[in-house]
Amino acid sequence: MPTDWSFEKIQFAIRSGLPILARKVLVLLPFTLDTDSSVPAYRQICDQIIGLVDRGVLPPGHRLPATRRLGPELGVHRSTVVRAYDELRSLGYLESEAGSYSTVRRPERLPTAHIAPSTRGEDAVVDWEQAIRNPIPGAREYGLLGSPRTPARGDVIDLDRLAADPRLAPDAELRRSVRQGLKGSGSSVFDYAEAQGTHPLREALSTWMLRHGVAASPDEILVTAGAQRGLDLILRFLTRPGDRVVVEAPTYGLLHPLLALHGVEAVEVPMRADGVDLDRLEQLLGRADASHRPRAIYTMPTFHNPTGITTPQSHRERLLLLCEAHRLPIVEDGFEEEMKYTGKMVLPVKSMDSRGIVLYVGTFSKVVFPGLRVGWIAAPRGAVRRLTDVLQITSISGNTMAQTVAARFCAEGGFDAHLRRIHRIYRGRMRALLAGLEAHLPSEVEWTRPKGGYTTWLTLPDRVSEKEVVAQAEAAGVRVGAGRRYFGKCPSSGQVRLSISCADEDEIGTACRRLGTLLREMLVGG
Amino acid sequence: MPTDWSFEKIQFAIRSGLPILARKVLVLLPFTLDTDSSVPAYRQICDQIIGLVDRGVLPPGHRLPATRRLGPELGVHRSTVVRAYDELRSLGYLESEAGSYSTVRRPERLPTAHIAPSTRGEDAVVDWEQAIRNPIPGAREYGLLGSPRTPARGDVIDLDRLAADPRLAPDAELRRSVRQGLKGSGSSVFDYAEAQGTHPLREALSTWMLRHGVAASPDEILVTAGAQRGLDLILRFLTRPGDRVVVEAPTYGLLHPLLALHGVEAVEVPMRADGVDLDRLEQLLGRADASHRPRAIYTMPTFHNPTGITTPQSHRERLLLLCEAHRLPIVEDGFEEEMKYTGKMVLPVKSMDSRGIVLYVGTFSKVVFPGLRVGWIAAPRGAVRRLTDVLQITSISGNTMAQTVAARFCAEGGFDAHLRRIHRIYRGRMRALLAGLEAHLPSEVEWTRPKGGYTTWLTLPDRVSEKEVVAQAEAAGVRVGAGRRYFGKCPSSGQVRLSISCADEDEIGTACRRLGTLLREMLVGG
Repeated sequence: MPTDWSFEKIQFAIRSGLPILARKVLVLLPFTLDTDSSVPAYRQICDQIIGLVDRGVLPPGHRLPATRRLGPELGVHRSTVVRAYDELRSLGYLESEAGSYSTVRRPERLPTAHIAPSTRGEDAVVDWEQAIRNPIPGAREYGLLGSPRTPARGDVIDLDRLAADPRLAPDAELRRSVRQGLKGSGSSVFDYAEAQGTHPLREALSTWMLRHGVAASPDEILVTAGAQRGLDLILRFLTRPGDRVVVEAPTYGLLHPLLALHGVEAVEVPMRADGVDLDRLEQLLGRADASHRPRAIYTMPTFHNPTGITTPQSHRERLLLLCEAHRLPIVEDGFEEEMKYTGKMVLPVKSMDSRGIVLYVGTFSKVVFPGLRVGWIAAPRGAVRRLTDVLQITSISGNTMAQTVAARFCAEGGFDAHLRRIHRIYRGRMRALLAGLEAHLPSEVEWTRPKGGYTTWLTLPDRVSEKEVVAQAEAAGVRVGAGRRYFGKCPSSGQVRLSISCADEDEIGTACRRLGTLLREMLVGG
Repeated sequence: MPTDWSFEKIQFAIRSGLPILARKVLVLLPFTLDTDSSVPAYRQICDQIIGLVDRGVLPPGHRLPATRRLGPELGVHRSTVVRAYDELRSLGYLESEAGSYSTVRRPERLPTAHIAPSTRGEDAVVDWEQAIRNPIPGAREYGLLGSPRTPARGDVIDLDRLAADPRLAPDAELRRSVRQGLKGSGSSVFDYAEAQGTHPLREALSTWMLRHGVAASPDEILVTAGAQRGLDLILRFLTRPGDRVVVEAPTYGLLHPLLALHGVEAVEVPMRADGVDLDRLEQLLGRADASHRPRAIYTMPTFHNPTGITTPQSHRERLLLLCEAHRLPIVEDGFEEEMKYTGKMVLPVKSMDSRGIVLYVGTFSKVVFPGLRVGWIAAPRGAVRRLTDVLQITSISGNTMAQTVAARFCAEGGFDAHLRRIHRIYRGRMRALLAGLEAHLPSEVEWTRPKGGYTTWLTLPDRVSEKEVVAQAEAAGVRVGAGRRYFGKCPSSGQVRLSISCADEDEIGTACRRLGTLLREMLVGG
């Protein structure tokens, strides 16, 4: 469409009664035709007459110029004007008796095209804000990615955001993958793909999972538009409103609005130093009667968000046995599986899943190309089949181009190379964070010491309020994540999350100094 | 990742006990290291020992070679082997006392990495196929796009599929839009976009809608991953299980499984020659008590799927007034708004929506690049805000690259040019279909004569069964859509849908001849 037809321009032109296209001014009707436009002439005539009627310039009953006169005036054939008038009649804008003039119609209701949207709403018959059936907590509170965030002042260091650092995006390699993806695939890259995901990508993901000890064939993998969409599909599959799902407290902040949207109750089990409290979980599962037993447990065993905790092998084994005994599906979120910087590797719970109870959710988005929206679920075949049904019914298929690019990026070693590069960088950032906290924070503050991932979890002394720390930190030039965001009904006991995903080592050092100064002042004052 | 690590290869190698990577064969342990691989040596050692333990080659208690011996054998530093053994200990595969040999651990439960997935399931504790909470009809019955379809024999002409014809894809122009999209956007094309959709695309869609008489500012547009996902978001927004939604009978086949998945009951109102039966609708809305009133009506006023019917202006006006009076949101599916070949243009119901009751769903997928998954919703601001919340909570944001490409394709006139080209082609196809049916079908068969879109709707004489016609048509070389697919509980009264989207004029002509011959035979026989 012609770029100069911007909405604002047209609206402005209509409001002010100016001719929109300045080629040929017509005395009979205040508009012109653009002969260079790709919009057919008859349609230009229609559009402009509609505008004139809607603005009241042409009142009901007004007689329009005869087609044999308007044609030559506009420099078009008479039949073009006839076609335009025909259209306008069928749209309810004109009426005419055979052989006579066309007049503006006074219809029961006129199309309101070209009426400025801001003038509507007075007559609104539906209150859309209130129409939502499963109320959700204010999404903006959760600091959602992809939402316009309050921009930080230039000197505020962002230790809040948890996302692949756009400054580290392997631009050249991704562009190459796009080019090669386009070259290799003919026009199929623009066509529907298999709903489960393209085979080359599922093959790459299968190999990838194998390196983490998970034997999932391409048949046991479903490609999703990111991990969040994966969780959404799983909840759609396993729950109905009124159901319950066990979650860690604290947990991934965006899980709570997702559960609320599904009408599902979060049963929160506290985190301990080595992972979710399994004694509490065991009690809970023992107590639940059949009619109200939870439908799943959601867990992040590796680089838990927000605490940074990685559970030991023994914790994983007990969790799995417990859930098997209670036939409780485990949703394992491996969102940062790759991001181990130091110490020993621990395999995902999924790697031990001989009885097919674990739905593993993975994603590229925390390390590369979040804008391509590529994640996956590795799960037993029956679950993948059903989840594929759900995906098809709700969105037909995934994004073929994005999947093609991702598969190329893996196949050509771009992903491995990128991970090696960002491992080095993030290892440095995490060291800088832990060293900075050690050097600057008062001894009363406690924090976790993750072996990988992006976050650490600070526990504040009782004497300072979490809310005030968050507000004053922003004022002092550090944006941090308020602990309450990561809980549902469980109250936060004065905690904040620090994320290194989008700050470099120098920024992290400065942020730690600022936080140290602030907390010392607050503790003296408090 | 190395491309030769395909899942099948590894599985085969492990099953048959062959060394996977054939560089350096080790006498101590039956595996080798690939020094060219990007996989670190310690990880190769881990992976292969895990495989050996899982296959039972190395039994519990088995003593592993000393690190000082294995290192030189493998051509790596001793510390590499130490690191590998450390990992294996943390994974629960090895145990060792300080200073002594490492031995294979007999753990409570061993990770089952490398166990072929097909050997699982015997112990399954969850029946995943049955686990779905809102049962859905078999998705495959609906001939879903993106699902592997039974491939037609080479000589079968497909009048079933309704999708953008991949043979008409404007490949070169799309590739150019991809290149320009990449060029214009830096690395942001790989990063999260605004959840509502990129501004350039919403701007283009706003202009686009204006050409159809709909004044929707970019703020009143939400970009979705296709129209189906748009419908999914709307249902999530407006309904809970147990709610009711009014639909046309017949209607878009994939709507019924979508409603079922949401636990929503479809209230079917029959189609008449000029659109859904408004008298029946009025009765229905008058009868419904407040507690059980429908939450929305879903309608396709233009080129209705499957019937091809376009409703006249008067029908649209009455529908709108009726729904306003009952505060019933209208979900208007304009999936083929562009595809008018002959006759008068009729504006969408949305164009008259002065009281903000219409949620208009649009898509590119029926005319171009379905694999990019780009659709949109034009709706009142409050509804767009809430729908954006739902989109964010369920998938964070849309696909930035796809939206960038789509916006470019529009801005550069590629979309307009493509539409002009396919209009010409589809006008020819529709003429060929209507002429072919006229020439070859027995007079007892009736069909609709659409002014655009892709489908016509055949009503068969009572004497032949729909099911048999579909089966015998396939045998005679024409695939058609069984009418029952487009109904929920309402029975189909012997109808089939013919789609011209993926067959050319010659094929359509041949198909009509074959159908004519078949139906004449069946009618004589029946």
